Amino acid sequence: MSKYSIGVDFGTLSGRAVLVDVDTGEELAVSVLEYPHAVMDKTLPDGTPLGQDWALQHPSDYIQVLSFTIPQVMQQAGAEAKDVIGVGIDFTACTILPVKKDGTPLCFFPHYASRPHAYVKLWKHHAAQDKANRLNQIAQERGEKWLARYGGKISSEWMFPKIWQVLDEDEDIYNAADYFLEAADWIVWQLTGRQTRNACTAGYKAIWNKQDGYPSKAFFKALDERLENVVEEKLNCEILPIGAKAGEITPEAASLTGLLPGTSVAVANVDAHVCVPAVKIAQKGKMLAIMGTSTCHMLLGDKEAMVPGMCGVVQDGILPGFYGYEAGQSCVGDHFAWVVQNCFPPSYEKEAAQKGLSPHELLTQKASALRPGQSGLLCLDWFNGNRSVLVDVDLTGLILGLTLQTKPEEIYRALIEATAFGTRKIVETFVQNGVEVNEFIASGGISQKNQMAMQIYADVLNLPVRIAKSAQGPALGSAIFGALAAGKANGGYDDILQASERIGKLKDEFYLPDPAHVQVYNRLYAEYSTLHDYFGRGGNDVMKRLKELKRKA
Amino acid sequence: MSKYSIGVDFGTLSGRAVLVDVDTGEELAVSVLEYPHAVMDKTLPDGTPLGQDWALQHPSDYIQVLSFTIPQVMQQAGAEAKDVIGVGIDFTACTILPVKKDGTPLCFFPHYASRPHAYVKLWKHHAAQDKANRLNQIAQERGEKWLARYGGKISSEWMFPKIWQVLDEDEDIYNAADYFLEAADWIVWQLTGRQTRNACTAGYKAIWNKQDGYPSKAFFKALDERLENVVEEKLNCEILPIGAKAGEITPEAASLTGLLPGTSVAVANVDAHVCVPAVKIAQKGKMLAIMGTSTCHMLLGDKEAMVPGMCGVVQDGILPGFYGYEAGQSCVGDHFAWVVQNCFPPSYEKEAAQKGLSPHELLTQKASALRPGQSGLLCLDWFNGNRSVLVDVDLTGLILGLTLQTKPEEIYRALIEATAFGTRKIVETFVQNGVEVNEFIASGGISQKNQMAMQIYADVLNLPVRIAKSAQGPALGSAIFGALAAGKANGGYDDILQASERIGKLKDEFYLPDPAHVQVYNRLYAEYSTLHDYFGRGGNDVMKRLKELKRKA
Repeated sequence: MSKYSIGVDFGTLSGRAVLVDVDTGEELAVSVLEYPHAVMDKTLPDGTPLGQDWALQHPSDYIQVLSFTIPQVMQQAGAEAKDVIGVGIDFTACTILPVKKDGTPLCFFPHYASRPHAYVKLWKHHAAQDKANRLNQIAQERGEKWLARYGGKISSEWMFPKIWQVLDEDEDIYNAADYFLEAADWIVWQLTGRQTRNACTAGYKAIWNKQDGYPSKAFFKALDERLENVVEEKLNCEILPIGAKAGEITPEAASLTGLLPGTSVAVANVDAHVCVPAVKIAQKGKMLAIMGTSTCHMLLGDKEAMVPGMCGVVQDGILPGFYGYEAGQSCVGDHFAWVVQNCFPPSYEKEAAQKGLSPHELLTQKASALRPGQSGLLCLDWFNGNRSVLVDVDLTGLILGLTLQTKPEEIYRALIEATAFGTRKIVETFVQNGVEVNEFIASGGISQKNQMAMQIYADVLNLPVRIAKSAQGPALGSAIFGALAAGKANGGYDDILQASERIGKLKDEFYLPDPAHVQVYNRLYAEYSTLHDYFGRGGNDVMKRLKELKRKA
Repeated sequence: MSKYSIGVDFGTLSGRAVLVDVDTGEELAVSVLEYPHAVMDKTLPDGTPLGQDWALQHPSDYIQVLSFTIPQVMQQAGAEAKDVIGVGIDFTACTILPVKKDGTPLCFFPHYASRPHAYVKLWKHHAAQDKANRLNQIAQERGEKWLARYGGKISSEWMFPKIWQVLDEDEDIYNAADYFLEAADWIVWQLTGRQTRNACTAGYKAIWNKQDGYPSKAFFKALDERLENVVEEKLNCEILPIGAKAGEITPEAASLTGLLPGTSVAVANVDAHVCVPAVKIAQKGKMLAIMGTSTCHMLLGDKEAMVPGMCGVVQDGILPGFYGYEAGQSCVGDHFAWVVQNCFPPSYEKEAAQKGLSPHELLTQKASALRPGQSGLLCLDWFNGNRSVLVDVDLTGLILGLTLQTKPEEIYRALIEATAFGTRKIVETFVQNGVEVNEFIASGGISQKNQMAMQIYADVLNLPVRIAKSAQGPALGSAIFGALAAGKANGGYDDILQASERIGKLKDEFYLPDPAHVQVYNRLYAEYSTLHDYFGRGGNDVMKRLKELKRKA
């Protein structure tokens, strides 16, 4: 009799559940629900206007995902509730909300329904930038040693800038909240009836460390007197390692989802990090890159190293027993979309229509005919700043080598190459700081759609590149953790390596570096590195000065 | 009774005559003839194939221009031949042909009709590049002091590389030629029955200097033993200053053109240089820029200065009594055309069609709404290399400051700004080397069509910008020289200043620098200069290395 695990992935616009056979890893059913409120960035449901850079969500949407998608995948697969042994969930992060002691979101109370700060602040809520700037400045001045774990900078997307914004702009809400917590952990609370917090979001987004805990009271006091006790007052909860069991489905959750009470629930996770076991990574040295509009890099190590420009290093933050490293490129696929939007002339549109190709497909077809170096172009992949390794949002993009003969497909290819060079810079920075990288695994849209890009990555990195097989990376990863939470005794797994090996999926084919291409790309990468350091490390701060002029204009 | 002068301008694809009232400057008639053979760059008329980078013309086409356009403008204007007091002609340069002692082009002889080297080599015949490279190398090794007059480099378009190519590839033709001369001088020969050579082409294109003459025999011998006596053997002819009278219409020329025998004919001129009096310039300090796909800059000075990167300085080469300076930007309007070809998406095409605008007009309309500095972009205007002041064909274009929000019109404007910065670099280099520039006059297509561009030039240069009024700049200039050749006694002028003042034409409106814009552009220009020197003067030769990689790919 087959046993199943369900992974539920909460994305930016929708939630999806996948039901997986825990023995074979087969994905038997998928169900998706778009969030009814989507992203609220202009007004609240009652019309209350929101400020610039705000991005909120409604927690009732998440509950609907549970009640809709979980029963649906069981029904589609013909799986009985008794055979579903575990549930795992992952979420965007840092996506947080204020709740009462019993877990009720403040925005559920009618008297708070018009208060923007009572709602979920989505990861891409960017209205706390001034708080982040101030926080970074104070941390630097105080020489806070944890800053190095985050590549030297805390993002405005993370927990404390967001909480500080609430305090500063709506102290009532701050005071009314018994907890601020990740939506990920809140969902697990809804399922298990018990608050837990996961080491992944705590570590990567809330400056928590297994040895050192959160930053000191003195630090929080330096931010704002009222924040001195923010950890005890608002975050007071046990933090569990990734891979642990959070609890079991309560009777209430059972009636919501159709699962049986007592079904194991894994500690919550983040959508990117949870993909690691989904591509069979359970050892150090294999880098996972989730390639979409931007790229998130995950890497396991066996010791803690301070790597310049990384997004964070967290013990047990990706898989139990490892130090999980995260890095990022803030703009990858968005570069290619920029070319389609701006450098795709009507004649190309006509040609694409005739050939039945999308703009991306046509550009890729044309760009595939080019050999490395043939365009004469070199780009810096900083159209949206640089996260790793320079951590500088004020850097901008560059195209060099243009001639009157330069064609859109050449720019397209040069931008793909530039993102590969950016990845190589990250890989080399890890290696130089003692964190091994010997294989590259790609998941996300680009890895599935663009073979040329993947070959370029193999050639630029001079590493074998493997590709995720499942189109449901995060949900599959969550299902793996569901099976792990259930444990072997219940038909699941006690060991993440084994679970990952059985349920995770990689495509059979992989991309091997072409030695002739490697040689050319080594030369181009040397040029990239020179420009990277000249423009990114103080040789010529023209990009920042232009941004300053732009702001003034 | 009105008196008239006729200017005939021989362009790349057509010849045009303008008939002008010498008192009022009024342009009474224009006539254009497309060359029947156009540019021969694939085959000769008999099908003989041509090599790569060849560009030939047929001299019979030029004769047809004389016999068609001159009678036509007289007829259109109702002008009698007796009232036409002078003729001036200008031509593309360096455009040369081999002829017999009596002026007959070698290609007119049936036994040479299949020999490519017997034809006119058009200015853009680029198949003598290896000869130019070798010539420059030898000149440098020998420390030839004249090299500095040409910004340190002789172009493959100029006379000696072209003659050397003939010698090297078809010695029969070389030996059969009694002269190699500019098509400009050949036309004047056809009109006057007497060979003359003009100081403009001799000075700018044939390394001739009023004091020093041509390069030494030793230099020519160093190129090739057989070239030792090339000047005596192939160029032996008096060189007359611009503004002089070459001769008078012969009876044969009279029957060809309908002019009266004895009508004055001016010394020949070059199409760019002849525009100077057409915009009323007859004093030092006013720079004329002829702005089209590329830009040619003309400037008068009262002494000879060595200016890095200029195209040449020639005494009496533009106007008698002055040192004429020439500089150039090898790519100006071509940049903007590149944007239209590559960064003009279908949605813009639709919008342009709805508004009844050309792509350039739409982009200009959108770009006009931007303030200086607002795009955050900075470009290097080197999509076709850099002529002045770096003299480097291997430099390439750059766009810096790109973001995901960057729009085509921002790139369009930034490229216009970059060409203005390139012009400022030329202006500053002249000034730094003691050649005054205090006003900027623009002619050519861009000056007539794009007011935004002209305001940007005024703001970037911090100089008043005036605009040529006539759409027939070169032909009008030639008519001025025709009136000067006729002299006051015949109803013309003895003084070029007076002729230029009466016949030359500027628009009434002009562009004054906006102080607020000047301030922003000073900052952007400082950034441009840093990048200009970093990429153009050895700080980082990445552009050359990328070109090398491109050649190998």
